[in-house]
Amino acid sequence: MENKFAERARLIKSSETREILKVTERPEIISFAGGLPAPELFPVEALKDVCNAVLSEEGAASLQYSTTEGYIPLREAICQRMKGIGINSTIENVLITSGSQQAIDLTGRLFINEGDTIICESPTYLSAIHAFKSYNAKFVEVAMDDDGMVMEELEKKLQEHPDTKFIYTIPDFQNPTGRTLKLERRIRMIELANQYDVLIVEDNPYGAVRFAGEELPPVKHFDTESRVIYISTFSKIFTPGLRLGWICADESFIDKYVAFMQTADLHTVSFAQRMTAKYMELYDIEEHITKIKAVYKERCTAMLSCIEEFFPKNLSYSKPEGGLFIWVELPEGVDSTHIFIECLKNNVACVPGVPFFPNRTQKNTLRLNYSNMSKEKIIEGMKRMGEVLHRELEKETALL
Amino acid sequence: MENKFAERARLIKSSETREILKVTERPEIISFAGGLPAPELFPVEALKDVCNAVLSEEGAASLQYSTTEGYIPLREAICQRMKGIGINSTIENVLITSGSQQAIDLTGRLFINEGDTIICESPTYLSAIHAFKSYNAKFVEVAMDDDGMVMEELEKKLQEHPDTKFIYTIPDFQNPTGRTLKLERRIRMIELANQYDVLIVEDNPYGAVRFAGEELPPVKHFDTESRVIYISTFSKIFTPGLRLGWICADESFIDKYVAFMQTADLHTVSFAQRMTAKYMELYDIEEHITKIKAVYKERCTAMLSCIEEFFPKNLSYSKPEGGLFIWVELPEGVDSTHIFIECLKNNVACVPGVPFFPNRTQKNTLRLNYSNMSKEKIIEGMKRMGEVLHRELEKETALL
Repeated sequence: MENKFAERARLIKSSETREILKVTERPEIISFAGGLPAPELFPVEALKDVCNAVLSEEGAASLQYSTTEGYIPLREAICQRMKGIGINSTIENVLITSGSQQAIDLTGRLFINEGDTIICESPTYLSAIHAFKSYNAKFVEVAMDDDGMVMEELEKKLQEHPDTKFIYTIPDFQNPTGRTLKLERRIRMIELANQYDVLIVEDNPYGAVRFAGEELPPVKHFDTESRVIYISTFSKIFTPGLRLGWICADESFIDKYVAFMQTADLHTVSFAQRMTAKYMELYDIEEHITKIKAVYKERCTAMLSCIEEFFPKNLSYSKPEGGLFIWVELPEGVDSTHIFIECLKNNVACVPGVPFFPNRTQKNTLRLNYSNMSKEKIIEGMKRMGEVLHRELEKETALL
Repeated sequence: MENKFAERARLIKSSETREILKVTERPEIISFAGGLPAPELFPVEALKDVCNAVLSEEGAASLQYSTTEGYIPLREAICQRMKGIGINSTIENVLITSGSQQAIDLTGRLFINEGDTIICESPTYLSAIHAFKSYNAKFVEVAMDDDGMVMEELEKKLQEHPDTKFIYTIPDFQNPTGRTLKLERRIRMIELANQYDVLIVEDNPYGAVRFAGEELPPVKHFDTESRVIYISTFSKIFTPGLRLGWICADESFIDKYVAFMQTADLHTVSFAQRMTAKYMELYDIEEHITKIKAVYKERCTAMLSCIEEFFPKNLSYSKPEGGLFIWVELPEGVDSTHIFIECLKNNVACVPGVPFFPNRTQKNTLRLNYSNMSKEKIIEGMKRMGEVLHRELEKETALL
């Protein structure tokens, strides 16, 4: 019966990384593989109050069908928070989505024609690659350094690919690298987008989780021609299981997003939207985020110290100032999938980097997540991983 | 900047009916226009307990990322309920979606190539039309009578359209007509699907809300070759605002659905899934559905009596045994959009039928919803509508 599938079904398969993650979920494994927030920080007790308040005060309305655009008080609270980072918007610019993943998918649906070019950081977010590929996009990767996407490279690619539809970028604590685009480059990216008449899709799930260094305004802040589609989420600052993200964009774009969302799933869960709005009404989400930052800072610092202490010296790694991930580049020629398999034998897990490259060009990288394990487990896991790396990299060197 | 949109964006616009519905939401209007369940029946008090139990017993897990396939106890409960109506399945056949709308959309995404033919009842569910059209499907409509889709017509269309991908059908208390496919036709539909090698997409949001007549097994019950993709939802038997639907299909199909869902929104809201599972654990959902049926029966009966009493005699209408809708066919030549506008002037609303015909062929029909208004409002609204119809149909006759 598989001959019934649409052609686009050939473009997509169950994410290999999700299959990897299933293996890493065995309880004996110390996992740096996933991208899960620390569950012990979820405001479980507060949410008992919140659910009760929503049901008592708003009753049936919280359980009924609601508008596609999203719950107005939640959109207002989002506009307010975005104002704090330099984005001016009204609720007409904001659409609530089922996590930022739906925002990414709808963006593909709204903008990508078969064969369109998407320019992105090399590497970039895996599920954005899958989503855009499912609309038959071509990916052009732009090299990064420690300050994010390199603007000279971006301009070169824009010149070479006049069929570019948009630049997909994660400027803050990028997934998978943990790197941040520096200020001048943000301004330059807007200039280039204006000059070459392309859109920018700014995916910012992690920006609010900055635990070191200086706040930077989002790329959207510098947007002079409504070219930036800004995507964010409550997953990293509140809870991912409520699946709440949003798109902030020009009203003419939002109108079309709404039309697609009506066919996609009508609207985002009413109750989850009201829970989140009520939480922000009754509790101080900034205080909650401060707690998250403190914990992630401790874990990131611990992991970086462990790399310094336990890992071989002939590798490089990112030093994130926020977010959830550290990126490790092994010596050229080392296949990180092999490292991953060896680590699993020692009950410690990471993610091999190759699927994060849309064109699968680089095999010697690893992504490490520090948000989901305690400091103690981080130290133990990094020790084990260090042993594997020492052994395997020495073998590699012996082969040279 | 609209030149940036993908071509498929031209295929879609914000649903005209949703725009109509916005007008009908003014508080002074008695509305038979929407398709909303009765909110006074939502188990608000029970859900306070349920939320508390989920958060106390399952804690952070209810707020964390979860698997794409859905929460296992919920899938088990769904298999159990489906068993009760003659569908044998295991959790491997079940994917939890964001309402049945997402199930419909993913079905389009998985199966429809540009130009594929979808065969459906004439008329059919509006948002399925929009979803499938967004994948560039062609619609072939099959005439209905009081017993649902006419099988001789279906066979003719299957012969004429060998490029048919699937038959989309709502066999129980169809939206918009309220009609039900009779038993022999269900069996015949499977025979025809086997013979002409097409899939069947059985959309069954209302089947559990039968308040008169005899239970009928779903088309899926008679499926001998795993050709039926069965779609249902908790929206009409529990709450629509939690956005929980499901797909039950062959495992090879579910695998591909999962892959598409990973790009669409990763997974359905964890907390909503656990709320629903916990509700079914702590409360008797069958008892709850019994209450819904009693109320809808009273309202449907009241509305049918009002048609008898207040409406002109030269129109016909369906007599549903369940679900949410009555379908009215006015004399040929009458434009129901005009009737709708005249009704609005008298603060009563219905939906003109034309958008429910994918090829927009029939202008003289109206859909009436009875689930969302009290008996008193139904009587008052139907009186007003009767006056409009008498006046307008007499004008029409005078013109002849």
